[in-house]
Amino acid sequence: MGKAAGTVYLVGAGPGAPDLLTLRAAEVLRRADIVFFDALVHPDTLALAARAEKIAVGKRCGRHSAVQRFINKRLVDAAQIHRMVVRLKGGDPLLFGRAQEEIAALEAAGVPFEVVPGVTAALAASAELGIPLTQRGRARSVAFVTARTGAGERENDWVKSAAGADTAIIYMGVGQAAEIARQLLAAGVASATPVVIVENASLPGVRGVRLTVADLPRAAELDITGPAVIMLGEVFAAVTRHPIESLPAVAATA
Amino acid sequence: MGKAAGTVYLVGAGPGAPDLLTLRAAEVLRRADIVFFDALVHPDTLALAARAEKIAVGKRCGRHSAVQRFINKRLVDAAQIHRMVVRLKGGDPLLFGRAQEEIAALEAAGVPFEVVPGVTAALAASAELGIPLTQRGRARSVAFVTARTGAGERENDWVKSAAGADTAIIYMGVGQAAEIARQLLAAGVASATPVVIVENASLPGVRGVRLTVADLPRAAELDITGPAVIMLGEVFAAVTRHPIESLPAVAATA
Repeated sequence: MGKAAGTVYLVGAGPGAPDLLTLRAAEVLRRADIVFFDALVHPDTLALAARAEKIAVGKRCGRHSAVQRFINKRLVDAAQIHRMVVRLKGGDPLLFGRAQEEIAALEAAGVPFEVVPGVTAALAASAELGIPLTQRGRARSVAFVTARTGAGERENDWVKSAAGADTAIIYMGVGQAAEIARQLLAAGVASATPVVIVENASLPGVRGVRLTVADLPRAAELDITGPAVIMLGEVFAAVTRHPIESLPAVAATA
Repeated sequence: MGKAAGTVYLVGAGPGAPDLLTLRAAEVLRRADIVFFDALVHPDTLALAARAEKIAVGKRCGRHSAVQRFINKRLVDAAQIHRMVVRLKGGDPLLFGRAQEEIAALEAAGVPFEVVPGVTAALAASAELGIPLTQRGRARSVAFVTARTGAGERENDWVKSAAGADTAIIYMGVGQAAEIARQLLAAGVASATPVVIVENASLPGVRGVRLTVADLPRAAELDITGPAVIMLGEVFAAVTRHPIESLPAVAATA
């Protein structure tokens, strides 16, 4: 393969709201020749790339390795013919953005790349709540984790980190909330530990639900379909701010 | 005290580079009547607040509680007479931004506030290195911690979280690197665990130094004076990218 004509920019689109993009990301998009974007990127963000060819490359969750290999190849190929290739990802590219395979493919092909960091979902969620994740004398550690529990993974590693931190943020965990609660409790996290689930942080449909670790299995009742984070720790005991709601009374059984 | 005339915006200035500010933060600054800013905020960022009175309120580190009470009062007072009051902080306001006392003061005085999240230093540092903090099958948890070891704190709590995570980022720790190394080793972290110290992430004077947990006490030789993060974990074994350098050969003793 010849020397690449261009550079690939791995760009964080931020948590959702188009104006939580960085100035640098906006400028890179404006100058982009081609943009490969994830499903969660806001249309107004994408529209900044006025002169670029725009190619959807699927959701962050549920992406298979074959799809990933295809994206890797598209990025490398695009850099042979375009000067500015953008790979646009929700949040920050290097925190739960599955960037390592794309970076490895670019490095293997000798394609230069740059990373434009972004605002990660947890920070948008805490901004909505008005609750600092760290608090003097109360919380000096924050764990950001994913809690997949699939076979073949070192399944409890995430929980050591979450249980050891004063504040923990679980990304992409709402669908496995019951299993997450089981593992947190087994790791010694108190069942009354305050939890907030924030869905669609920074977007018009933002919603926060206050519960406890013991209640986490009931997350399935909440009909959460947007991107969401599960946040836990004593700092969330004080959450009262709009758009917070309490867990509804125990659902009627059919 | 009467009803506040204005709203206080707690705004993240991002990691350093002025173009890593969000579009929303830039707009809030442009419309601001008065801005209270930390020492680490870039002059070009501050210049966006063209029509605002600008008031320096000291560094993040080493702020005393008397100074904090003074800032709290200034924010509350400013909201009585200005429509848009900005409190501009490096990084993100709610992650190691010491925002809780300011928020508590605003809430106590009935002053409405909004938080504009920002890009935190760790994400700018990993962007410089081109190294994802999370990697499939290798790193699914990241701890962000401060490691103060002062009397009266639950001094080892931070280390549980850092040692339990696949990747750990220690903010504001370079000055206590020897004590941090001692506690990490005591918590069972392997002495050969890769470490990178990144100073001035996103700024022209950016510098990265690769070492190990065993070498951390030698951080004092590196003459680090800018804002810096200590990053550790297996993901950093692969760091080779500019601006990385190795720890110099053992310093000559005088």
